[in-house]
Amino acid sequence: MQAEIIAVGTEILMGQITNTNGAYMAKQLTALGIDSYHQQVVGDNGPRLEEAIKLAESRSNLVILIGGLGPTPDDLTKQTLAAHLNRKLVEDPDAMAKLQARVKQQQRPMTPNNQLQAMYPEGADILVNRVGLAVGAWIVNGQHTYVLLPGPPKEFVPMVDHELLPRLAKWSGHAEVMVSRVLRFFGIGESQLVTDLDDLIANQTDPTIATYIKDHEVTVRVTASGATEKDADAKLEPMVGAIMDRDGQYFYGYGDDNSLAKELVKTLAANDMQITAAESLTAGAFQAALGDVPGVSTYFKGGFVTYSLATKAAFLAIDARELAAHGVVSAFTAKAMAEHARRKAAADISVSFTGVAGPDTLEGQPAGTVWIGLARRGQLPEAHVYHFPGGRNDVRQRAVMTGMMLALRALQA
Amino acid sequence: MQAEIIAVGTEILMGQITNTNGAYMAKQLTALGIDSYHQQVVGDNGPRLEEAIKLAESRSNLVILIGGLGPTPDDLTKQTLAAHLNRKLVEDPDAMAKLQARVKQQQRPMTPNNQLQAMYPEGADILVNRVGLAVGAWIVNGQHTYVLLPGPPKEFVPMVDHELLPRLAKWSGHAEVMVSRVLRFFGIGESQLVTDLDDLIANQTDPTIATYIKDHEVTVRVTASGATEKDADAKLEPMVGAIMDRDGQYFYGYGDDNSLAKELVKTLAANDMQITAAESLTAGAFQAALGDVPGVSTYFKGGFVTYSLATKAAFLAIDARELAAHGVVSAFTAKAMAEHARRKAAADISVSFTGVAGPDTLEGQPAGTVWIGLARRGQLPEAHVYHFPGGRNDVRQRAVMTGMMLALRALQA
Repeated sequence: MQAEIIAVGTEILMGQITNTNGAYMAKQLTALGIDSYHQQVVGDNGPRLEEAIKLAESRSNLVILIGGLGPTPDDLTKQTLAAHLNRKLVEDPDAMAKLQARVKQQQRPMTPNNQLQAMYPEGADILVNRVGLAVGAWIVNGQHTYVLLPGPPKEFVPMVDHELLPRLAKWSGHAEVMVSRVLRFFGIGESQLVTDLDDLIANQTDPTIATYIKDHEVTVRVTASGATEKDADAKLEPMVGAIMDRDGQYFYGYGDDNSLAKELVKTLAANDMQITAAESLTAGAFQAALGDVPGVSTYFKGGFVTYSLATKAAFLAIDARELAAHGVVSAFTAKAMAEHARRKAAADISVSFTGVAGPDTLEGQPAGTVWIGLARRGQLPEAHVYHFPGGRNDVRQRAVMTGMMLALRALQA
Repeated sequence: MQAEIIAVGTEILMGQITNTNGAYMAKQLTALGIDSYHQQVVGDNGPRLEEAIKLAESRSNLVILIGGLGPTPDDLTKQTLAAHLNRKLVEDPDAMAKLQARVKQQQRPMTPNNQLQAMYPEGADILVNRVGLAVGAWIVNGQHTYVLLPGPPKEFVPMVDHELLPRLAKWSGHAEVMVSRVLRFFGIGESQLVTDLDDLIANQTDPTIATYIKDHEVTVRVTASGATEKDADAKLEPMVGAIMDRDGQYFYGYGDDNSLAKELVKTLAANDMQITAAESLTAGAFQAALGDVPGVSTYFKGGFVTYSLATKAAFLAIDARELAAHGVVSAFTAKAMAEHARRKAAADISVSFTGVAGPDTLEGQPAGTVWIGLARRGQLPEAHVYHFPGGRNDVRQRAVMTGMMLALRALQA
């Protein structure tokens, strides 16, 4: 049971459009547990398209063709597949009626190319196009099954969701249920995490483990199958436990659609607490990331960007001589910024950032040196120093995420 | 002269990431007049990757492999190609030094997988990675040329632009000099711009015009060739002029490595002026974007995030009753925020943002309604209202960019 996606379109080969349909289709196959080891992109060219179909047939039993069903002369996917399978193209009366109504409405003549949109290879199941005019098709031919889908994403996505997925679920013969859990980590690199989980990854069959790095965080997707969801869960749990035993100190939350900011806002809500920040090198990036989360306004009312000694003194009422004496890259400054901002904003918890984003050094300290302050109502403020690698914006982004992790751990304590 | 792109990565086959690198690479090939009739995607699997390489060799003489150069066990593109070509992997001392420095800075052990990132197939030209640790390579082997590129887009794009494109231009037999100019536009959609330039694009041969949209801005790359740089420039100028005649009001700057924030900081520097901001719905994103620009600290000393009526009143000393009377989504509030922040920060120019990021309405106004205030020393503050389409973060991002464009135009006036 193996699927292969062929995206058809010279626009993709020329880089005029990105193959987002391929990604969407691939994600659906994965969710259904259908393996896919190859994808192809080929232009609007009959002979090359037929070669691509033959290659796919040689190694996959489900061939999904995306694009080339439209009304222009270079749309020839349907004709090429029909000829390859020795099938005639026949008319779908419903699609033809829709097409005729559209043509009449637009007061333009019906062309043969237009008509092709309402045709499908004889013997195929029609996949209805709810948005556009070109019909899709599901064609069983001996050991192989072929799917024809339109290229425009606004037509493609609904056809996949409503017409194709139910057929695919049946085709893939899911006796089993697949369950995934996504674990999110910050503060550990992908290579370290993979090293920590080395034996688990090497021996994976079911559950499987997939790691993925993006924007300084690592996600681990654990997927198990079973006769029922409960069975799959029962396989999943020990593996999740084993991963957490090894790297739990870097774990911050579950889920595909999660982030440190979301987890922090959720935790603020659970504690009914308000947060603020005073940012120097991060220049508002911590607060902007909080602002990304819908509903944050109940837990975040505002804060400060204090990029110079003068604004640290003026906006936060910190003694300028003390700032100068300790330096802006110091524990003193980080603590004072956090605590003074917390009081000014009448917040329960406050995070501050001061340090050297780079590329230049500051106060004799190298780029990447960052002090993060944390102040909580009723507690003495604290400050932590970090030495972040990478360029200016890596340093700033890591600082923001580290500040979120610190606040999260403080709220969870 | 035919190129084939092979994107390597199980994440692409599983639909976890979209193959944007393929589109970027394809666009560059098109711009250089290099034909490409096929693309492949294959997972992190040695035998299947080698099959893909063999297939590409059978029909293309330039094989571009993207992805799989990282430090995890599933990164095996480099090893697979080297074995296929019967070449050893050898160490690049510069990359190894960079790697060792990074490992040392992070106080973690050097693993063999880490070391692989600094190695390349013997006899290859190294493509320097300016952002990350994995080196790329350009390998001539008989009739075929192979390219190894890293998968993370922030490493991939600079390596293509700075290391690969000059080699490709030479490889494609451009005896001629090619000169490109990149024009950057904000406030116009790609489809509108393409419509405005319709006839220029339809008739393009030399210069060529390529448009590209990213993060709400549109870039246009105009490329001309000539016997000398001067000849190419002479062809370029009239085309650039024609484009500017049509859409110059949306133009903000030149260059691949430019942004509204960079252009704004450059213009602040030219005017020796200081900027500040008071942000409500954008929650620090405007200031954070300024903070992205190295050297900004001379022109930006700090500002405010005032997410609630109370913080607008408290941090900026705006009368709370007046705020309540006008509403926070109002011209009054935008002007007051900008002017009060300007005075508090002793800045020359100040931008404010207040409005409805969504998804909910606010004060009866729909999501996407945004007031942007602009205050300048010695002038009355002004405010402009916008209705931005899209989701919460689209609205916030467009607001930030529109604020930058407003400040830029004010400084240029």
